[in-house]
Amino acid sequence: MSSVILRSDFKGLSPAEFFYRNREIAGFSNPVRALYQTIRELLENSLDATELYGILPTIEIDIKIDEEHSDRVIITVKDNGIGVPIEHVPYVFGSVFYGSKYDLKQSRGIFGLGIKMAVLYSQLTTGKPIFVRSSTPDSPIVHEEEIMIDISKNMPIIVSQRIFKKRRKEHGTEVRITIEGNWAMAKRRVEEYVRRTAMIAPYAEIRLRGPDLELEFKRSTRILPNPPRLGKPHPYGVDIELLKMLISDCDANMTLKEFLLKKFEGTGERTIATFLRWSKLNGNAKVKKLSIKDLDQLSKAMRGFSKWRRPRPIPLSPLGEKLLKEGVKKILKPEYISAVTRKASSYSGHPFIVEVAIAYGGEIPVVDKPILYRFANKIPLLYDEGVDVARKVVDSIDWGYYKVKFPAPLAVIVHICSTKIPFKGVGKEAVADVPEVEREIANAIKDCARRLRRHISYIEKIHEIKRRKITILKYLPEVTRALNEITGVSEKTIKEKLIAILEKDLKSRGEAKIGKEAKTKSV
Amino acid sequence: MSSVILRSDFKGLSPAEFFYRNREIAGFSNPVRALYQTIRELLENSLDATELYGILPTIEIDIKIDEEHSDRVIITVKDNGIGVPIEHVPYVFGSVFYGSKYDLKQSRGIFGLGIKMAVLYSQLTTGKPIFVRSSTPDSPIVHEEEIMIDISKNMPIIVSQRIFKKRRKEHGTEVRITIEGNWAMAKRRVEEYVRRTAMIAPYAEIRLRGPDLELEFKRSTRILPNPPRLGKPHPYGVDIELLKMLISDCDANMTLKEFLLKKFEGTGERTIATFLRWSKLNGNAKVKKLSIKDLDQLSKAMRGFSKWRRPRPIPLSPLGEKLLKEGVKKILKPEYISAVTRKASSYSGHPFIVEVAIAYGGEIPVVDKPILYRFANKIPLLYDEGVDVARKVVDSIDWGYYKVKFPAPLAVIVHICSTKIPFKGVGKEAVADVPEVEREIANAIKDCARRLRRHISYIEKIHEIKRRKITILKYLPEVTRALNEITGVSEKTIKEKLIAILEKDLKSRGEAKIGKEAKTKSV
Repeated sequence: MSSVILRSDFKGLSPAEFFYRNREIAGFSNPVRALYQTIRELLENSLDATELYGILPTIEIDIKIDEEHSDRVIITVKDNGIGVPIEHVPYVFGSVFYGSKYDLKQSRGIFGLGIKMAVLYSQLTTGKPIFVRSSTPDSPIVHEEEIMIDISKNMPIIVSQRIFKKRRKEHGTEVRITIEGNWAMAKRRVEEYVRRTAMIAPYAEIRLRGPDLELEFKRSTRILPNPPRLGKPHPYGVDIELLKMLISDCDANMTLKEFLLKKFEGTGERTIATFLRWSKLNGNAKVKKLSIKDLDQLSKAMRGFSKWRRPRPIPLSPLGEKLLKEGVKKILKPEYISAVTRKASSYSGHPFIVEVAIAYGGEIPVVDKPILYRFANKIPLLYDEGVDVARKVVDSIDWGYYKVKFPAPLAVIVHICSTKIPFKGVGKEAVADVPEVEREIANAIKDCARRLRRHISYIEKIHEIKRRKITILKYLPEVTRALNEITGVSEKTIKEKLIAILEKDLKSRGEAKIGKEAKTKSV
Repeated sequence: MSSVILRSDFKGLSPAEFFYRNREIAGFSNPVRALYQTIRELLENSLDATELYGILPTIEIDIKIDEEHSDRVIITVKDNGIGVPIEHVPYVFGSVFYGSKYDLKQSRGIFGLGIKMAVLYSQLTTGKPIFVRSSTPDSPIVHEEEIMIDISKNMPIIVSQRIFKKRRKEHGTEVRITIEGNWAMAKRRVEEYVRRTAMIAPYAEIRLRGPDLELEFKRSTRILPNPPRLGKPHPYGVDIELLKMLISDCDANMTLKEFLLKKFEGTGERTIATFLRWSKLNGNAKVKKLSIKDLDQLSKAMRGFSKWRRPRPIPLSPLGEKLLKEGVKKILKPEYISAVTRKASSYSGHPFIVEVAIAYGGEIPVVDKPILYRFANKIPLLYDEGVDVARKVVDSIDWGYYKVKFPAPLAVIVHICSTKIPFKGVGKEAVADVPEVEREIANAIKDCARRLRRHISYIEKIHEIKRRKITILKYLPEVTRALNEITGVSEKTIKEKLIAILEKDLKSRGEAKIGKEAKTKSV
């Protein structure tokens, strides 16, 4: 054996350098995907900056080809959101892992990574800084910055900064970024992404302008879902490190009992008393004095106790059945739609809600298996459908049982809301198959599918009635003639009367059904 | 519209905190997967620490259930590798993004993340440090450490350290870690992972001992693939940031021409002259003096120039056809095998090599579509097959053309080596569909499949001959009797002679074929 020992160099990377090197794991793998991903991150930030704060979103996306370099794309996104305070701009745009997205509440952004990836990509493909113009509602100024990232230090470089007095009541953020991108190839995906965003956010006004494209999605409602509120961690999802972090914020006298009561979701006086009795832990112990071993015991007990209350859904912001139907109708224009928003559930201490809509007929194309529209915290997911939990569930449903015979015009819309979506990667494209989530998706789809079955039964009956009418009409001349011979009444009169009776009969049967189903269809 | 403006807090996370919060993106999503992932990271580190340095790997994996806590697993992995120098131990095990894996050469580890994720997971589920015992070949000491991570600072905590005088010639690393894990559920995956590792590294000796498991994979060869050597970046994959980093290492007088010659792969005097003429750039310019705009022009030119030489495969370490067959035979025990190692190719400046083996018959189960074994830089990939480029290619092959009629006993083994595997996530489970890689996989599979077709044709012929023999034997008594009546020679003699002629005939036809095919089968 030849022993060729080569020493490796050891080295530390900054987070910016790590993601610069591994940009494809965040979706920045080539000029097509990077362009799509950049637009997506900007649009998501704008939606988070508006609807999470109770503002009806109005967003303009503008895409231009760089006149000097045909392989470069200039992307501008402008919103009417809450703006970024001037002191945070450099870090929000110029330092990886810095952001406002780490609160315990539902938002589109969750990794604090997206916009910085776009800045990194811009920087390394065009050498240009990102341009930001922003103002907060309460501020008297508007500020403009050009930001780059010092990759090896993961620190922002402020290339320029200008401050203006605000002349009219305005707030929001405008971002402009130049990247190497392939618009011709990315166009269809971007269009589809914006279309699906309009589906899940029917209260948003989004305008997309490109070199050969002009799309406008007007808001079809002025109702916003309830914004999410800050949540607390649930005892079931606790670990030693989380306990340490929470305890570091406590004052010296806080007891274990107070700690459990104040810092967690799903705990109340009575539950805590039961927990302390069950776990044999001392509720009067000072939390600041607990050792690692104590914390280990405590976390084990908290995760082992079966009687915590379920987390409340206050940090979540589902669309609700009405808005979901509104959005789906606006975009897919189906003949029939049903929607279900399930009650809040939880996995590993994270609350989540599943919403599902089923759309059938109308302008939905006839396909061999259901078209799936996936959303997570109102983000449309376009890639990697094959490994998403929702696809797995949809494919496992016995659609024949619900009277759907493929090929059929069927679309299934699945929306998962959570303070922590179990994404399979930082590119946010597929949701992992967590058993609790899987079960909720299946139940929601089945709820909707049962209603769809009633609708299809009804459609079948209508067809049956129509078929019968046609049969009767076929024999009408002979019947009329016979009755005329027997009764002497004119053929014309007999025919008119018979048709009137038939129509009335069909109408009453049909309308009774229509009346019953109409409720399901529109509510 | 109600304007409920809630301010968010802005906050920066350390890399350790980021991955602590998002551990599922690195595969640490639950006690089953985390156990699998931990064993995997440790085994991969051990293999990298041995074979990359020309050492035949001998690795022991030991898994025990914690006697005090039945939901905790103690994992020990010991290797005969190059060891970790004492001064690097705290960072290698206790600081995210610190490591030896950032060189431009093929290795299993690439993100500098795996072992730290295991340490984080251990810490948050059991509160315990990782134990490390290590020694480098040239050092007179053996050292032992217990390491934890200060998550908010991303810095190591050295819980304990001991140093011993080395008593016998030894080198390598032993790591012990205690995590919450579910052995009963993870066992089969772990077993399969080790089995596949033994397939791709037939020169490794791996012992896996668990509570109810004892597996030993002996090395079936003492031949190691050539270790990879350090490579340089290829001009085609350059960007402005890479240019900046490379230039920061240059001295003040280095000219652009020298820079291109010394710092890149695929450049030579003549190529550079052509490049400078084509790009109209000044080869005598001092690189330290180039502005961002100059760098932008330079990187654009470098990526636009079509005449760079292909990157050489020196930083790569493919198995080669012989070792690949060796490994596949050892584990799958097929009747027939063919293998191909393609020439080096490249995507975005990264060199890569695709190797494929096709195994048929023998102990391979009969299946409806080919069983796929995926490997990337000798890492077996077990999850997310559905979105892997290799699955896509295998499914697109018209197997009927190669005489494979499903159900059939067919396995396809695909191995991709690169300085940069285009993984879809930090969990290293699926390879993205980069067109260049896709094409190479398809070509390699077709090469192998053509040989398989010849084999199947041969098998079909043998069957045909045998069938004919049976037919002839069936009529033999009548023929014998007839000949006996005509010639008077005894039936016994006639029968023996006829059979001898027949056997000889069959044998010559068969063996000609066998001789021809045998070459394909064993080389």
